Amino acid sequence: MSGAELAQVEGALERLLAAGTSLPGWLPLDDHRELWSAFQRASAGGKRFRPALLLSTHRTLGGRRPEAAIQVAAAIELLHTAFVVQDDVIDGDQVRRGASSLPGEFTARARQQGAPADGARRYGEAAGILAGDLGMLGAVRAIARCEAPAPVVEALLDLVETTIHGSVAGELADVRLQLDLARPAPMREVLAVAELKTALYSFQLPLHAAALLADAEEPVLRALDEIGVLFGIGFQLFDDLLGVFGDERRTGKSALGDLREGKRTAMLAHAATTESWAQLHPLIGRPDLDAIGAADARALLTRCGSRAWTEELARWHLEGANDAAARHDLPPALIREIRSASDEVLRTAEHALIPAHSTPAPPLTEQPA
Amino acid sequence: MSGAELAQVEGALERLLAAGTSLPGWLPLDDHRELWSAFQRASAGGKRFRPALLLSTHRTLGGRRPEAAIQVAAAIELLHTAFVVQDDVIDGDQVRRGASSLPGEFTARARQQGAPADGARRYGEAAGILAGDLGMLGAVRAIARCEAPAPVVEALLDLVETTIHGSVAGELADVRLQLDLARPAPMREVLAVAELKTALYSFQLPLHAAALLADAEEPVLRALDEIGVLFGIGFQLFDDLLGVFGDERRTGKSALGDLREGKRTAMLAHAATTESWAQLHPLIGRPDLDAIGAADARALLTRCGSRAWTEELARWHLEGANDAAARHDLPPALIREIRSASDEVLRTAEHALIPAHSTPAPPLTEQPA
Repeated sequence: MSGAELAQVEGALERLLAAGTSLPGWLPLDDHRELWSAFQRASAGGKRFRPALLLSTHRTLGGRRPEAAIQVAAAIELLHTAFVVQDDVIDGDQVRRGASSLPGEFTARARQQGAPADGARRYGEAAGILAGDLGMLGAVRAIARCEAPAPVVEALLDLVETTIHGSVAGELADVRLQLDLARPAPMREVLAVAELKTALYSFQLPLHAAALLADAEEPVLRALDEIGVLFGIGFQLFDDLLGVFGDERRTGKSALGDLREGKRTAMLAHAATTESWAQLHPLIGRPDLDAIGAADARALLTRCGSRAWTEELARWHLEGANDAAARHDLPPALIREIRSASDEVLRTAEHALIPAHSTPAPPLTEQPA
Repeated sequence: MSGAELAQVEGALERLLAAGTSLPGWLPLDDHRELWSAFQRASAGGKRFRPALLLSTHRTLGGRRPEAAIQVAAAIELLHTAFVVQDDVIDGDQVRRGASSLPGEFTARARQQGAPADGARRYGEAAGILAGDLGMLGAVRAIARCEAPAPVVEALLDLVETTIHGSVAGELADVRLQLDLARPAPMREVLAVAELKTALYSFQLPLHAAALLADAEEPVLRALDEIGVLFGIGFQLFDDLLGVFGDERRTGKSALGDLREGKRTAMLAHAATTESWAQLHPLIGRPDLDAIGAADARALLTRCGSRAWTEELARWHLEGANDAAARHDLPPALIREIRSASDEVLRTAEHALIPAHSTPAPPLTEQPA
């Protein structure tokens, strides 16, 4: 995405958000203003990765609706913020990227005003649920209002509707898998969650929307759906790796969080099939896991091959996305864009992953028999 | 609403819900099917009060789009279910009308499968949030697809969007007022919550939508907005009265719940301005309030005049709705419909309220000075 395009997406997003402020007209209470301005803050500062994917795909497909593309790109960013905010409620996250999450902000405000902890938490959760509702609604309405022929708009709305249904199913499945920490999650289900919760709305949606806006033919749409799923799962697998093996100075997030939470990743699903699982299992999902325990877990995940296996699976998915682009005979410029985007994901991951050989050997937590 | 109309609304609702089942196409996991079928159950068995208001208003305004009206009526019922389900998450209600709420259903299922209480509760909450998202989305899409000219559909979508913004603000304000049980909620804010959370979507929305579908002129739309707010607040005030003074055999809900929860009603805001407040205050918002304490609270609310004041205010609002209908010169059939609907609310309330004189005198909880 060029600097000019980024500025246009930011501009469109700002307009959509500004419109939301006065949308219900005058209200007798301040709650709407507070909620919507918090939603505006939650949507600020993202990398605008999804809009960039949409715009470059639209361009390389020869699309001629740059304004509609920018509007839909901004709408997808609104949808993303809505999912993030409700995800923070569902996961009970009071912090996001080092600052208060939207629920955390409302919880903190209530606490400052003397509310008891439980009430304040519920207030923050209510704010997150309701802000998410408004963001999702705003996304759908923004797509409905984009400047494209009615059948294209209708197809875009059908697309976003099926995408939201699938994403919601993925989110619920993710919470369900989290319920039973004692039992390892089946690989099939973990990968299905990656597809539904991440690939659908973050990859397939911008790719497919771009193709609809560019009046692409059915085979191109199907190819992009395939590419979106492969790319999205590959991206999620690297994200899982970074959540455990990431250099915190580069990822900007704790490399303890996923282990403490016992996040159901493909890497853990793999580890559960190895001999290391008996040693690894007690370390996973412990909120009090410390740096030493985490180092043990990392060493076990490396030694049992789960780290290498996950890296390989991630690369296989990204390569698969590139193969699909070539196989389906997409325009050369689009094939290059997909290559460049997947290279970027790879490079970012390689830059931020701590080298496998630097993992210290695990201290012996049990005496050998 | 005639029996035939009711059947048509039920039919439209069933079609919308059936469409949602297969909307995302084949998914690799069962979570979507489970979530959507739970949403279908949550939407079953309502009185379809909002659809009835929409259809009778559309008819009496001489509207000629019965099919679109039925579709929009069903969409409003979807929206209502979405609000109810997310409200159950926000209020932590595991039970609704004597059965499991949607969050309660998923929580219970997780518990049966051995999940710990906290995880199961969070799973139920996730399901409620996500089902609400899908219901709201379904409502908006159903309105977008109704068979009416594009400008009417556009106006309906704008209406539902501003309505959702206002309702969400009312819901958040309601939670906020609940935070500080020690301080009585200001009357102005309690009435604003009744307007935003109840009157907007349950009264103003069906009235205004009906008028849009009937191609009514601007003065009629404005009159119906005014009527919707007055009617809605009157309805809410009676609902508050029934929550404390209702005959449980007739209301079908506990007459302890609102007192235990310390629900911020206009009746309590009034009581806080009376001399009885010092005695009443310690009884309100206590989860362990028993039948004797509740009888004390009822007696105090009666003696200090708050019950009578609330009944009067409720009647004043319903009367105001009827006055507005006459003053704005609405069609006589519509004036009669509004009279008949408000009479129905009054009759239901009078039938289910325990008589004021039957309240026993409060035991002396403090010795007179």
